[in-house]
Order: sequence, then structure tokens, then C-alpha cells
Amino acid sequence: MQAYDFIVIGSGPAGQRAAIQAAKLGKRAAIVDRQGMLGGVSVHTGTIPSKTLREAALYLSGWDQRGLYGQNYRLKQDLTIDDLMHRLHITLQHETEVIHNQLTRNNVQIIEGTASFIDAHTISVEHEDGHTEEYCSNHYLIAVGSRPVRPEGIPFDDKHIVDSDGILEVRDMPSSLVVVGAGVIGVEYASIFSTLDVNVTLLDGRDTMLGFLDNEIVDELVHSLRDRGVSIRLGENIETIEPGECGVTVKTQSGKHISADLVLFAAGRIGSTWALKPENAGVETDKRRLIKVNEHFQTSVPHIYAAGDVIGFPSLASTSMEQGRLAATHAFGNHDPKMATSFPFGIYAVPEISMVGSTEEQLRDKNIGYEIGIARLRETARGQILGLEEGTLKILFSLDDHRVLGVHIIGEGATELIHIGQAALVLGGTLDYFLNNVFNYPTLAEAYKIAALDAWNKLSC
Amino acid sequence: MQAYDFIVIGSGPAGQRAAIQAAKLGKRAAIVDRQGMLGGVSVHTGTIPSKTLREAALYLSGWDQRGLYGQNYRLKQDLTIDDLMHRLHITLQHETEVIHNQLTRNNVQIIEGTASFIDAHTISVEHEDGHTEEYCSNHYLIAVGSRPVRPEGIPFDDKHIVDSDGILEVRDMPSSLVVVGAGVIGVEYASIFSTLDVNVTLLDGRDTMLGFLDNEIVDELVHSLRDRGVSIRLGENIETIEPGECGVTVKTQSGKHISADLVLFAAGRIGSTWALKPENAGVETDKRRLIKVNEHFQTSVPHIYAAGDVIGFPSLASTSMEQGRLAATHAFGNHDPKMATSFPFGIYAVPEISMVGSTEEQLRDKNIGYEIGIARLRETARGQILGLEEGTLKILFSLDDHRVLGVHIIGEGATELIHIGQAALVLGGTLDYFLNNVFNYPTLAEAYKIAALDAWNKLSC
Repeated sequence: MQAYDFIVIGSGPAGQRAAIQAAKLGKRAAIVDRQGMLGGVSVHTGTIPSKTLREAALYLSGWDQRGLYGQNYRLKQDLTIDDLMHRLHITLQHETEVIHNQLTRNNVQIIEGTASFIDAHTISVEHEDGHTEEYCSNHYLIAVGSRPVRPEGIPFDDKHIVDSDGILEVRDMPSSLVVVGAGVIGVEYASIFSTLDVNVTLLDGRDTMLGFLDNEIVDELVHSLRDRGVSIRLGENIETIEPGECGVTVKTQSGKHISADLVLFAAGRIGSTWALKPENAGVETDKRRLIKVNEHFQTSVPHIYAAGDVIGFPSLASTSMEQGRLAATHAFGNHDPKMATSFPFGIYAVPEISMVGSTEEQLRDKNIGYEIGIARLRETARGQILGLEEGTLKILFSLDDHRVLGVHIIGEGATELIHIGQAALVLGGTLDYFLNNVFNYPTLAEAYKIAALDAWNKLSC
Repeated sequence: MQAYDFIVIGSGPAGQRAAIQAAKLGKRAAIVDRQGMLGGVSVHTGTIPSKTLREAALYLSGWDQRGLYGQNYRLKQDLTIDDLMHRLHITLQHETEVIHNQLTRNNVQIIEGTASFIDAHTISVEHEDGHTEEYCSNHYLIAVGSRPVRPEGIPFDDKHIVDSDGILEVRDMPSSLVVVGAGVIGVEYASIFSTLDVNVTLLDGRDTMLGFLDNEIVDELVHSLRDRGVSIRLGENIETIEPGECGVTVKTQSGKHISADLVLFAAGRIGSTWALKPENAGVETDKRRLIKVNEHFQTSVPHIYAAGDVIGFPSLASTSMEQGRLAATHAFGNHDPKMATSFPFGIYAVPEISMVGSTEEQLRDKNIGYEIGIARLRETARGQILGLEEGTLKILFSLDDHRVLGVHIIGEGATELIHIGQAALVLGGTLDYFLNNVFNYPTLAEAYKIAALDAWNKLSC
């Protein structure tokens, strides 16, 4: 039986970083994943495919350039999913190769197969050809990720009624789409398909959506989605979803019937922990099959860590990487690593959304005084050149010392631009930083200066 | 005779900011510019038109998407300049309106006409209809900008032999172009036209180009330009430029004959100070008609300031704004304003280039020890999704305390991405900032983390 210092189960963002970190600390590290799944859900069915689809949709639909060439501008009239996915296999292959190289270059052993715990120190790995092998390790990281919930009673057929994995396999462009679930994934796909002139309805049982974001940003998103014809129906619970002769019909408890070519069910994800049998190691899972961890990412069994989607919110590739790195660091002696408290959220909807730091709601709850600076991206010269009609950048400054407390952006480039505000926030930048420093002209980044001037004007009154 | 506290001559970026700053400090401020020229060269023939041309060229040529759809991908086969300039008049009108509103909202008087000094406290303004009026002021700011040099012996015809103002008026897309002058403007236009499959030759008498940039970045630019067929000929002085039957022929002193449909002469700019008669106020100009100022932007006559292109390097809209603001602040009592020392440079070539802080050359000259971290944009997942093949981000960290000393970027989004490095540099961020903080995934901004890891690996050896 081969022995390691650190076995990582799952090769997504959390697993990769953890294994490499352990190896860099001189430990014998191995990473287990099924054949062909190196990179995990992130590479194969999650982040990379949906972002590739998004870029292709924005370009081929002419969306990027509607500001310049008019709202009716289209690059290709009859888009197929294959048009959109043209580049995906190249990207996937490249990403998989990069991950493979990084792991092997850092002397991380790659074990192909499906892992399950035998006891708290031993796993069994079942290989593709059916034979199994046992491995033991002093420390483990569970980074097996999550998969879409497929509730009983929903007749998934992977053709007209799909989950967020299945949507990438659909080959006919629908003319209408119902998205059930207005979480991050549901909103991303609803907004992407709406740029392709698909008739989209977005349903959720809750009365609000994306509640962790700033309210004003959500309002602008809702306005933008409605403006291009997306029907948003909140507070609507699903009664049935049934395939019929002309598409699928979704019936809500309130009595609405909505028909569409395609239904995407994106209401929740559960931990991919069935095959792993964590109970054999004494690791507890909750009713969503997720694993609870402490601030060091230790499970109920201290030498077994967990990170990434399998521990739940925020379930972002970016934060998962950092969780993995910190788990490995903690496992091998550094008992004081801290998760950056100000990590950005990125939502790859159309328009893009990103935030860092606190929302107004959080500051009010904590009784922290703040002033708001707002800029519209169209107020920048680059926004004008790009013909942008939407987009807002909002900075929250402390009333006390004028430090940056939070930045909230919706619009073109939001996920990139947020890092400017993040640096200011983490490094103690204040209103003066944005007022006194020069920004390239023309850039969208100038919105930071415009927002700071807005806050300064309010503070000076 | 109307009297002011502050008269600003020229309404480009420097003039606007100065006038508004003075008005905000409660001073009677006026700004003088010719009718229809509000916004100055920046809006009418410089920054905005060239950047609009650039965006349109990148999109309509399909350049943005060659990584995705192959190097031979074209969106429109036969592009005309009118296609490219489609949006320009909308952008111009909007920018002019924005500037007009900002000035009037801040109670800055707008005086239309051509100003010239009568003495150090009085100007005469000649209006469009020929009548003149006199104004006096306690303080002046000269922000009249610059214009292209048109040396004797070059037969400019504004059709086949043009300067950088005239190129925006050309209506026939050339099939070949010679650009004389490999400064910022020459490189920008050479690179833009090369994306449109125009056969471009770039000439300069000097042996190097863009010497203020990091050498490695210039090397990548040169490689990129050559890779798409631009002929770069340095150390070549022009003997003659002559129109002939099939286009224009440029002869160099070394005996080369280069023929093309269009020649852009972009070798140098001079101060637009002829009409102004600064000598009447005792203000000195140099042989390039530029005005020398001290660190407070005062000319040889202390109550007369100058800012923007008319004072020479760096002649960027972004820095000019800040110079104008600081000049006004200094004029009215704040004797300790300082120009941000770490302002970014942005070059809107294809690919984009931007830098902030020091170059390797500068650090070596000062004997400051540094380590280099490098990332290729294609190493990021977003670079993969976008199909980027080129692009480099380079961070220079102090060996001493690991602070950021300089950031140099070439590639997609460089002028936006630089502001992340700028914030870290100005706010005292170190290598650890990039290692310990989370970046959105997938973004190009992740290149900062990759570069920091590269430096960390070198420092750990």
C-alpha cells in the first residue's frame, strides 16, 4: 500500500492548489480524480465552459457592439450551439494540459480513479478497468466539488429538461428557455441566452435574487434583463415540469403555465460525496451532502480537510483555490494562515457583476457610517467610445477615515475592474487615493475617479 | 474690460480641469477656445478619434477574435474608413456636450475665440466674426496644446501625404502605408492600420523606439508588429517624400525607396503658441514652441502657468488633467500640491501597452535591487477563453522589502489592468499582497498572481 503525507481527492481549483502547496512544502502529495476529469467540474462542466459560451455569445450575437452599431445589430443571424462551442474543446484541452503539467512539475502524483474512504487514514481507488488499489495518508483534503440537484418528480431528459451540466450538451438552439432558479448559475445562463434573442423566463421561489449583492446592483441587473425581454418571476414555486408535444410546460403553484423549448433546472447543488463514503472516515455531511469545516478547513476529523464547492458558499473557483492552499498550509505546520477577508465575487452574467468588501446593508447592520460615490460607465470617455449604455460603479467610503469599505460594479469588465478597488480596500486606500492619482485616459477605470469625486462632493456639502 | 481671477487658454484636458478647480476654489474663472474646438485636440483630432478608430478597427477587422476563429478570420472583407468612423461623430458630440455642461455647471465662463497676450495681465480675444475683446486676469494658464510638425520640404497634400491630424480626414482605405516617426502616435497608427491588412512600414531616424518603456515590452511590441507583417526600419532618416503616379515614394538617406498609397508623417509635435504671442507677456518658449515650467507649472512669469501638451513630455490626456488641477491649486494658495509620482502611461497601440513606476533600466541606474515576476496573459484561463496568443505582465519587486517598484504590461486590456498594479505600488503593496489575495477566476487580472508566484519562486531559490 502506497503511503503519502497528503492525499487530495478531487482535482478542481481547490484540490490542485492544495496538492501543489503540500508538495512545495516538501511533502509527498497525490491527487485522485476520475480518468478524463482532471481539473474537475470547473474545467469540464462549470466555470470554463460557461465562460467560453458567454464570450462566444457576446461576440457572435454582436452584443458587444450594439452600442456602436445599433440595438438591432447582429453578427450572425442563425447561431447554433456549435458556433458558440467552437473553441471550447481547444480551451478544455489546453487547461487540462496546463493542470497536468503543473501537478507533475511539482511532483504531485496523479492517481486516476474513484476514491472512497475505508477508514480515516485509508482510501480505496477504483480504476477505470475495475481493479482497486489502497492508499494511506497522514492528511487528506476532500475537494470533490458539487453537482446539480436533480429532485425527484422533475423528468430530466438531458434534451429538453436539463440541469446546468446538461445544458452544455444541448445541440439545438432553443427559441425559448425557462430557467428555474435565480442563483448565480441560473442568472448567468438566463442572461447569456437572452443576448442570443432566446425568449427567456427566469423563475425562483424566493422573493429576491442574489441577496448577497448590493441592492442597487441587483436592481440594475433586473432592469437590464427586463429591458431585453427576460421575464423575471420571483416568489413562484414549481408545481410540475412536463414535456408535451410543443416543448415543455412549467406549472407554478400560483397557477401559471409557461411553455418553452428548453427548461434549465438550476435550483441548488449538492456535494459530490456519495462515492467517497466520508462516513467511513467519520466525516460528517449535511443533508445537502456538503461537509462542514472550521476556519482552518478541518472537517469533524482534524487530519481530514475539505475545501471548494463541497463546503458550500461561496463556491467560486477563485476562493476554492485559496481555501485549498490554506488547508495544505495549515496541515503542514503553519497554524496561522488566514483567508483573505476581502475576496472579490465575480458573476459572469451579461452584464458582468463583481463586488469586494461590504454592502450598504452590512454596514448599516454594523452601524458603520459611510458615504457613497457612484459613477456610470457611460460617463467615462472609454464608455462613450464603446457605446456603453449600462454599467455602474459604486464605492462605499468610511465617514470616519474615508477608507474604502466596499466596491460594487455591474457592467463591461466588472470582474477585472474590481481588483483596483480590492487593492485600495486591502491596502488601506482612501478617497484621496482616487482623487490624487492619475488614471489612463480613456479607460473604464476612470469610473473610480468619477465615483470618488461624487463622494467628495457629497462629503463637502 | 472684463476681469477674472483665472483665465485658461485652451479647453483640452489640462484647461478644463484647471478652470473647474479654480471655480471650485471660489474664483472667477474663464476658459478661452476657438468656436467648435471645446475639448481641444484631445477630443477633436487626438485621443478620442484615434481610440474610436482603434476600437472600430479591432472589431470590424475581426482582430479581437482571431484567437478564437483563426488567424484568417475577418468580419468585414472590404472595410472603408467610413465604416470605422461611423460612431465618431456621436462620441465627439457627446464628449463636447459633457465638457460644456461641466464647465457651465461649475460657473466657468466660456469665451469663444483666439486668444493672444497683450501684456502679462491682459489678453485680446478675436472672435469668429472678426471683432476683438480684451480681458484681464490675475492668473493665467496656458493650455493651448500642440500640433504636428510639418517640416518644410515635405509636400503635405492632406490626401496622400498627411500628418496625424490629416489622417482622420482620409476617406480611402490605403492598401499600403508608410509611417514616418516611431513615437507613440506613429506606433499607434501603424499598429491599428496593420490590423486592417494594410501593408505598413514604420520608419524612424533613431535606432530605438519608445525608449521610455521597458525594453522587454518594446521587444514584444516589435515582435508582434513584425509577426503581422509590419516592416520596422529604425535608423533611417528621410531624404525626400514625393508623390508619383502610383502613390507616394519615400526615399531614405541610406538609399531605400519605399512606395505606398499613403504616408503619415508623425515625427514630432510643436507647441500651438504662435497665435498666443506669449512673448508679449514675457513667457519664454523653446525652439519647439513649447513652454518651460517649474514643478508648480509656473512659466518664467510666475502668475502665468502652463500645462498639458504645451509643456512637452509626457503629453498624455491623463497627466495633463492632473497638471491643470495642480496649477490652479497652486495659483490659489495651496503651495504644497504634488503631482502623483506614479502615474500610468497608456499607449493605445495594438496590442495595448501600459506601465507605472520604474523600468529595469531606471532601477539599475539608481542601484536599486529588484526581482522580476513575469506572466503571459495566455497562462490565465481568461486568456485561454479569449484565445490570446500574446501579452505579458511584468512586475518589478524590491529585493529589500518586496514592494512593487514598477509594472509593465503589453496586451489585451493593458491600460485598464495597470491600475491594479498602480494601487499596489502607491499604497505600499508587496509581493505578499498578490500572493495572499484572491482574484476573480477567470480574469486577465490573475496574471498579477502568476507573475508574483514567478518572482516568489525566484526569490525562494
